[in-house]
Amino acid sequence: MSTSGAAMDPMTVAIGVPGPVDPTAGVVHAASNLPGWHEVPLRRLLESKLGCRCLVEHDATLAAIGEQRRGAGRGVANFAYITVSTGIGAGFIIHNRVYRGGTGAAGEFGHVVVAPDGPLCNCGNRGCLDAVASGLAIAREAGASSAVEVAIAAAAGDQLARAVLDAAARHLGLALGGLINLLNLEMIAVGGGVFGAGANFRDGMVSAVTQGSFERVRRQCPIERAQLGNDQGLVGAFELVMTPEKRAR
Amino acid sequence: MSTSGAAMDPMTVAIGVPGPVDPTAGVVHAASNLPGWHEVPLRRLLESKLGCRCLVEHDATLAAIGEQRRGAGRGVANFAYITVSTGIGAGFIIHNRVYRGGTGAAGEFGHVVVAPDGPLCNCGNRGCLDAVASGLAIAREAGASSAVEVAIAAAAGDQLARAVLDAAARHLGLALGGLINLLNLEMIAVGGGVFGAGANFRDGMVSAVTQGSFERVRRQCPIERAQLGNDQGLVGAFELVMTPEKRAR
Repeated sequence: MSTSGAAMDPMTVAIGVPGPVDPTAGVVHAASNLPGWHEVPLRRLLESKLGCRCLVEHDATLAAIGEQRRGAGRGVANFAYITVSTGIGAGFIIHNRVYRGGTGAAGEFGHVVVAPDGPLCNCGNRGCLDAVASGLAIAREAGASSAVEVAIAAAAGDQLARAVLDAAARHLGLALGGLINLLNLEMIAVGGGVFGAGANFRDGMVSAVTQGSFERVRRQCPIERAQLGNDQGLVGAFELVMTPEKRAR
Repeated sequence: MSTSGAAMDPMTVAIGVPGPVDPTAGVVHAASNLPGWHEVPLRRLLESKLGCRCLVEHDATLAAIGEQRRGAGRGVANFAYITVSTGIGAGFIIHNRVYRGGTGAAGEFGHVVVAPDGPLCNCGNRGCLDAVASGLAIAREAGASSAVEVAIAAAAGDQLARAVLDAAARHLGLALGGLINLLNLEMIAVGGGVFGAGANFRDGMVSAVTQGSFERVRRQCPIERAQLGNDQGLVGAFELVMTPEKRAR
């Protein structure tokens, strides 16, 4: 992102990575959807090519920064951004500061076990939220090529498609309810394709959130639709560069 | 707790409550094991009786403060204390500060759904961790009067007792693994009666933690035995009074 400097020479570049990173060292630990990415010193590689300062961040964290500074969660001190798309992930703002965990790996909401005897997950475990409620899982369970195809079939009355979406919505809602009970957050913004899955899906999710959380804490934690769409990461990167906070944990 | 003043007149009293509180307002929202406690203005009541400043805090939060300042988690910036006793709860230190959530209700680890079609919980929901792994749940499932009785029966070869403990240990371990993946904490200290349930229980729990978390984040988050025993709350109260942090969220 160009922040200043002559002509188009960037002063700082911030990049989002779909997997856990160490933002201090600028190292990508892993990225399960980028085969071969393992302990990649991305900041060093980029800085040597670009000749400017580079920041490396988990993409869900960038999205959380964007939504909390400029989107649905403006001013919310304890906030989570959840993406429900091909996979499921989270970014956190805690105490009004970006929360990355001890080594930058926080946010693996998709790899919390929600169905101990459920289907195998790509991570090797069984019954992760990702394995029962992600776009990939929905498509696989319904024997379709994508979650969008499943949503269209469900809208047209396909019973299997409807059952698969109902089960996914229930697992997702119960997991969100658990997150609310655990952390007493003040807002959760949800992005990704989930809001395109139809009113039944959203209703099922909301019903399961209600079932899976205490009324008083749930009332204090609205679940909002993320506002920045595909620009989340860009806005987050801009905010990270332009109004940096202390990057130490 | 007497911190100074003439003779035994206390300057400040800090009290731990077994349920969610608003520490700023000093109000106990609820305490499921104290029937009739609902929105009790405990700080005001205590201050009018005692004539000194009173602080009201969730007991698991006090224990977390105690363990992070003077026990197992000394100096750990991102830390959870988990109590596994009659019920299951958590206290958090995040960014090296006490984390209470938006309104002091954070830490309901026992009321995260881990078995969506599992047994009814006292909270009215179904399949909460509390309903499958707490001391109360273990006793109920085994038809015993206490979890200690179940542990003794299991040690003596009782198959039902053993199966109940195994299932509880698995649920607890998977939930701890999910917490590790979600928050990338740097240590979890476990207290309560859980370590008295025998080596099989602990082994089962550790095995499930391994199953339910990524190896890299798990290696960065040792699960330790809490060190302060029944003094946790007392030590936490002392630390809260003597070395207060900014109490705003």
